Amino acid sequence: MKQTYTHGGEVYGKNIWLDFSANINPLLLPEGVKRAVSEHLETYCRYPDDQCEKLRKAIASAKGVSSDWVLCGNGAADIIYRYALAVKASRVLIPAPTFSEYEKAFVLAGAKICYATLQEETGFSFEEEVKLDNIDVVVLCNPNNPVGNLAERTLIEKILTAATIKGKRILVDECFMELSGCEEKYSVMPCIERHPGLLIVKAFTKTYAMAGLRLGYGISSDTELLEKMKMAGAPWSVSGVAQVAGIAALREVEYLDRAVRLIKTEREYLERELSKLGYQVYPSMANYLMFRAEEELYQRLLERGVLIRQCGNYRGLGDQYYRICVGLHKENEQLIRVMRE
Amino acid sequence: MKQTYTHGGEVYGKNIWLDFSANINPLLLPEGVKRAVSEHLETYCRYPDDQCEKLRKAIASAKGVSSDWVLCGNGAADIIYRYALAVKASRVLIPAPTFSEYEKAFVLAGAKICYATLQEETGFSFEEEVKLDNIDVVVLCNPNNPVGNLAERTLIEKILTAATIKGKRILVDECFMELSGCEEKYSVMPCIERHPGLLIVKAFTKTYAMAGLRLGYGISSDTELLEKMKMAGAPWSVSGVAQVAGIAALREVEYLDRAVRLIKTEREYLERELSKLGYQVYPSMANYLMFRAEEELYQRLLERGVLIRQCGNYRGLGDQYYRICVGLHKENEQLIRVMRE
Repeated sequence: MKQTYTHGGEVYGKNIWLDFSANINPLLLPEGVKRAVSEHLETYCRYPDDQCEKLRKAIASAKGVSSDWVLCGNGAADIIYRYALAVKASRVLIPAPTFSEYEKAFVLAGAKICYATLQEETGFSFEEEVKLDNIDVVVLCNPNNPVGNLAERTLIEKILTAATIKGKRILVDECFMELSGCEEKYSVMPCIERHPGLLIVKAFTKTYAMAGLRLGYGISSDTELLEKMKMAGAPWSVSGVAQVAGIAALREVEYLDRAVRLIKTEREYLERELSKLGYQVYPSMANYLMFRAEEELYQRLLERGVLIRQCGNYRGLGDQYYRICVGLHKENEQLIRVMRE
Repeated sequence: MKQTYTHGGEVYGKNIWLDFSANINPLLLPEGVKRAVSEHLETYCRYPDDQCEKLRKAIASAKGVSSDWVLCGNGAADIIYRYALAVKASRVLIPAPTFSEYEKAFVLAGAKICYATLQEETGFSFEEEVKLDNIDVVVLCNPNNPVGNLAERTLIEKILTAATIKGKRILVDECFMELSGCEEKYSVMPCIERHPGLLIVKAFTKTYAMAGLRLGYGISSDTELLEKMKMAGAPWSVSGVAQVAGIAALREVEYLDRAVRLIKTEREYLERELSKLGYQVYPSMANYLMFRAEEELYQRLLERGVLIRQCGNYRGLGDQYYRICVGLHKENEQLIRVMRE
C-alpha cells in the first residue's frame, strides 16, 4: 500500500500539474450545479432534510423508479458502509481485483470475505456464475474499478434469480455506469422491482464531478433494508449543499451526453497511444482504463508532476498495474507526451 | 415519538414562519463562510482531502491542541457514530434526559445502555459522581441537550481521574459550549493531554450555523482511537465545502463574540417572559432553554406557523417539556406574543 486514499487528487503539498488518478467526469462541475450551490447559500444555516425528499423524487423520476426505493448518502462510500452494517452478512463474495471499500466496509461489519479471483487472461472480466452456498451477499462493481470492463446483464440476472430464490443479497455498484454510456444495455435497474435482494449503488461524485460535494445513493425495492441502512449510521448525512447540487445535476442532460461522447473518443485515443508505447491495455468501457507497465513508471511520472493511480493496493493486482482516468484531449495528449519522454 | 428528526427546521411542506426547533447560532451563517464557499466552487469537482490537513491545523491552533488529536467528521453525529463503532463498549452510561443520538449509536454498535437519571427537582443537573464498575464508556453532554445546564469541570475531572485509573472512556459532547460563552470555565479541553480516555465532541453546525454544510470534530490525545474511528465508517466523509467553510468559520472571532453576548441577553429575556406566562423554566447557560407547559402548546403554536421542539422523544421527559432555541430579539418577541395569544 503506497497511500491510504490516493484515489482522488489529494496530492496536497505535491506539485502536480496533471492528475489522472481520480475517476471524475473530465468536463468538471457543471455550471448549473455551481449556480445552484451559490444561489442557496442562505439555506446552509438550516439542518438538511434528513429524508432528502426533493432529491429522492428527482432521482426516482430520472431513473424511473419509486422514490421509496431511493436512499441518499454522503457519497457512494456512505451507502456501501451503511449497507454492510445493515445486512449483517456472515460471508460476502467480492471479486478481485475491485474497489477496496467493499472489503473494508464488510470487515468493519464483522463479515468474512471470500474472493472471486478474476483472471488476467480474460482481461479480468467477470463472466462466470457464482456459487451462492454459504454466501450471504455478492458484490459486483459494474463497470469494475479499476479495470473498466462490464459484466453482461444476462449473467447478473442469472445470479439475481438464484439469489432471490435462496434469499441472498446482491450489491451492484454502478457508480461509473452513466459515464460509460452503456446504461441502457448493462444497468440492472430494470431488475430492481423483481429482485428485492438487489441494491444498486450510484454516485453523483463521478458522473457530475461532484467529488468535493459528496453525494451518492442506493436503489432497492426492499424498503425495510433501506430503513435499516438509514439507521446504520449518523443522521443528516447528506448535506444541504449536496441536496441542492444533486437536484441541479440531474437537469444536466446535455452535459452528460457530451461527456459520454468525449470519454468514448478519448478512451479509444488513450488505448491506442498506450498500446503504441508497448503497454498492455485492458478492455474498458468506463471513464478510466487500466494498463500494465514497469513499476518505476509511477515515480518517474510523479517527478514530472503527473499523478496516475498505481494499483498495488488492489487485491489481485500489483504495482505494475496502473489506472488512469480519461481526461480532456489536451490533457490526454500531455500525458502521452510525458510518458514518451 | 412525534417525528423522527424534527430537530432542525425540516418542516418541509409546512407553513412555518418562526422556527425555534433547531439550536443554531441566531446570527446565521457568517458572511466570511458564505464568501469562502462561493470562492471555492471550482475545487468541488476534486475529492476532498480525506485527512482534512488544513482544517485540522486550523482547529488545533484555535483550541491549543496538537492537530494529531483532531478528527473531523460529517457533523458531530458522524463523530459520535464512529466513536461508538470504534470503542466496541459492552456497557455505556448515558444520562437521561440527553441528546438521543448517543443511545442510537451505541445500540447500533451492540452496547448495552445504562441510564443515569437526572432529577427534575435539581433542574436535571448532572451533579453526582458516577460508579464506573461494569461501565466502559460514560457519555456527558455539556451543556446538556435539551436542558442547557452545565456540569462542573471539577466533577467531570473527578470522573476522568477515576476513568483514567481504571482504563475507561469518557465522551464529553461540548457542541454547545462555545455559544454558552462558558468555555474557559467549563470546557474539559485542558484535560485532553492528561486523560487519553477523554474524547471531546465539537460542532461547527451549531456554533457557526453551518447545519446544512455538516462539520463536526472530535479531540482526543488517544491517536490510536482516532485512527480506529477513521476506519469505522466511509472515507471522504468531510466534504470539500465543509473543509473550506470550517477554515473560514474559525476566523469569525468577532461574529462569535457578538453571538455569545446576544444569546445571553436574549436567553434571560425568554426566561423572564416564559416565567411570566406561568411556565416552569429550567436553568440554562446554552443557546436554547427548556420549559414545561401544557401538552397542547405544540399543536397550538404549529397552527400559528411557529415550530418549537417537543421533548416527548427524550428519555426521561414527556410531551409537556419543550425546548426552544434563542433567536434574535425580534423573533423572541414574536414567539412570546404568539404564546400570549
